[in-house]
Amino acid sequence: MKPAYATRIVTAPEPGGPDALRVEEITLDPPGPGEILIRIAAAGVNRPDVIERMGFYPPPSGAPKGLGLEVSGTVLALGEGVSGFDTGQSVCALVAGGGYADIARAPAGSVLPVPEDMDIIAAAGLPETVFTVWTNVFEAGALKPGERLLVHGGSSGIGTTAIQMAKAHGAIVMATAGSTDKCDICRRLGADHVFNYREDAWVEGVKAAGGADVILDMVGGDYVAKNLAVLNRFGRLVQIAFLKGSRVEVDLMGLMLKRQTVTGSTLRARSAGEKAALAQAVRVHVWPWIEAGKVKPLIDSTYALADVAKAHERMDSMAHSGKILLIP
Amino acid sequence: MKPAYATRIVTAPEPGGPDALRVEEITLDPPGPGEILIRIAAAGVNRPDVIERMGFYPPPSGAPKGLGLEVSGTVLALGEGVSGFDTGQSVCALVAGGGYADIARAPAGSVLPVPEDMDIIAAAGLPETVFTVWTNVFEAGALKPGERLLVHGGSSGIGTTAIQMAKAHGAIVMATAGSTDKCDICRRLGADHVFNYREDAWVEGVKAAGGADVILDMVGGDYVAKNLAVLNRFGRLVQIAFLKGSRVEVDLMGLMLKRQTVTGSTLRARSAGEKAALAQAVRVHVWPWIEAGKVKPLIDSTYALADVAKAHERMDSMAHSGKILLIP
Repeated sequence: MKPAYATRIVTAPEPGGPDALRVEEITLDPPGPGEILIRIAAAGVNRPDVIERMGFYPPPSGAPKGLGLEVSGTVLALGEGVSGFDTGQSVCALVAGGGYADIARAPAGSVLPVPEDMDIIAAAGLPETVFTVWTNVFEAGALKPGERLLVHGGSSGIGTTAIQMAKAHGAIVMATAGSTDKCDICRRLGADHVFNYREDAWVEGVKAAGGADVILDMVGGDYVAKNLAVLNRFGRLVQIAFLKGSRVEVDLMGLMLKRQTVTGSTLRARSAGEKAALAQAVRVHVWPWIEAGKVKPLIDSTYALADVAKAHERMDSMAHSGKILLIP
Repeated sequence: MKPAYATRIVTAPEPGGPDALRVEEITLDPPGPGEILIRIAAAGVNRPDVIERMGFYPPPSGAPKGLGLEVSGTVLALGEGVSGFDTGQSVCALVAGGGYADIARAPAGSVLPVPEDMDIIAAAGLPETVFTVWTNVFEAGALKPGERLLVHGGSSGIGTTAIQMAKAHGAIVMATAGSTDKCDICRRLGADHVFNYREDAWVEGVKAAGGADVILDMVGGDYVAKNLAVLNRFGRLVQIAFLKGSRVEVDLMGLMLKRQTVTGSTLRARSAGEKAALAQAVRVHVWPWIEAGKVKPLIDSTYALADVAKAHERMDSMAHSGKILLIP
């Protein structure tokens, strides 16, 4: 008889606000070839989960049922052909879905050991932000030591991670955030120039601070033209979301004359092979920064899995700084 | 007594149509350190010259006086520190201005020997198009063998060169052009799929032909959104001009989801050092294709320097295919 893996998952059968979220009980199949089942210690809450809850971000086909894109925990069962992991080992992982749960299924290539000396709960806040920042700022954006990075939403999970990784890499970091407290967080994490976008003229500020060589943006809308205006010659603008919309009006003359680049990416749409390659790059380049204490996930708050609606309310409020985690 | 180098040059003291062009006589200084004076055999007419004539493209500071960005001819005098060239040698060169002339001044780094077995007049049609295509399609666009290039304006000087260089590199080439005759020219040069943009639905045609991995565009305007629509995952759109305008409305969601890149460049704004590095890359990678007969400049027509207004009328008419040359 095959073992049965009973788990709660979280779904939004009818798209809507945080109260649209439902906790369901399901039984998972044993891990397939190349898969790992993880008994979850904590799961990260991310912006794409909110967009999925609202019905605007259909999960890719084949994704496990339920919300949740990153987890930490211990290895519960290994599928055929998985090597390099032992049952009971502490790991964190990027998952294609179903991370808000007691047990989640991950492709082995997206699973990494918890960095040395790191709390297993806090490790749930690593995969989505670290993978996202590495692939967008360091791969697509090709940030070099001594260059200037501008990161919007500097106190978000992505933002706090980007500030720390860029500083660890030897870059000069500029950040925007929406309150004095959030700006202070950015400064404490090492940002060299911080602008309160509700009060400061950040476009002028960034220009006065030497412009940006790489910009990590999740805002879109009117920020696209502003970003191009502060982007230096050979600068790279990398879009990872469009909180203010993706339909934009922009003058591309400056892009041509200054030889700028606009690109972007999402993590979730990538193949298991692409994610595995990314995980290896992260393990080689970013894990040492974490183990040296240069990059730490900033935890905003933790909620019980049953209180997932409150966790989403917290994210919807935009009042958070750093990661929101769920504990099953 | 220093030698005097009397030459005609062409200027547009009052911006306007082809009749705004004036032939002036001036005396050039001897070549400065690192410079070469070239006795011109022919000069290429390029779109930026037209835009400069109309007053919209001010020359960079320090550029030689007068229109004209590329020439062929023989070395007349070498400045201090120039090696690798002999007086009387046949050369072609990118110049920062003053190419419509009897004698032009070029930084030695932008001068290349005329490829073996090539007519010195035809060689005037090489630098601007070959340098532009190399840096935009091969450097910025990183076109790989087996990938699909879409080039708009396939029968233009840039277009005919891009088709041939991409085919020599082993790419699959798609082109748009504005008449049956121009489409035939693209096909004869090796383009695999050709669309008459006045009659064909090129967006659907390119999609049906497998989409584009790299697009070389000088149109802009509504073509930007159309280009993004036919650009494959990881595709690169490279803008080298904006004949239909650079202010565009575009939805960047697809760019993020398909991890596309938009970039662009111009040649003229580059430093002498950048141009010299580009000239070396062209000599190594493109000169062998020319010497093997795989890439040939397509010459539309030649005009006497005194008839420069007629040459510009020809370019303004958009009836030309390939390069328009001036003979002093």
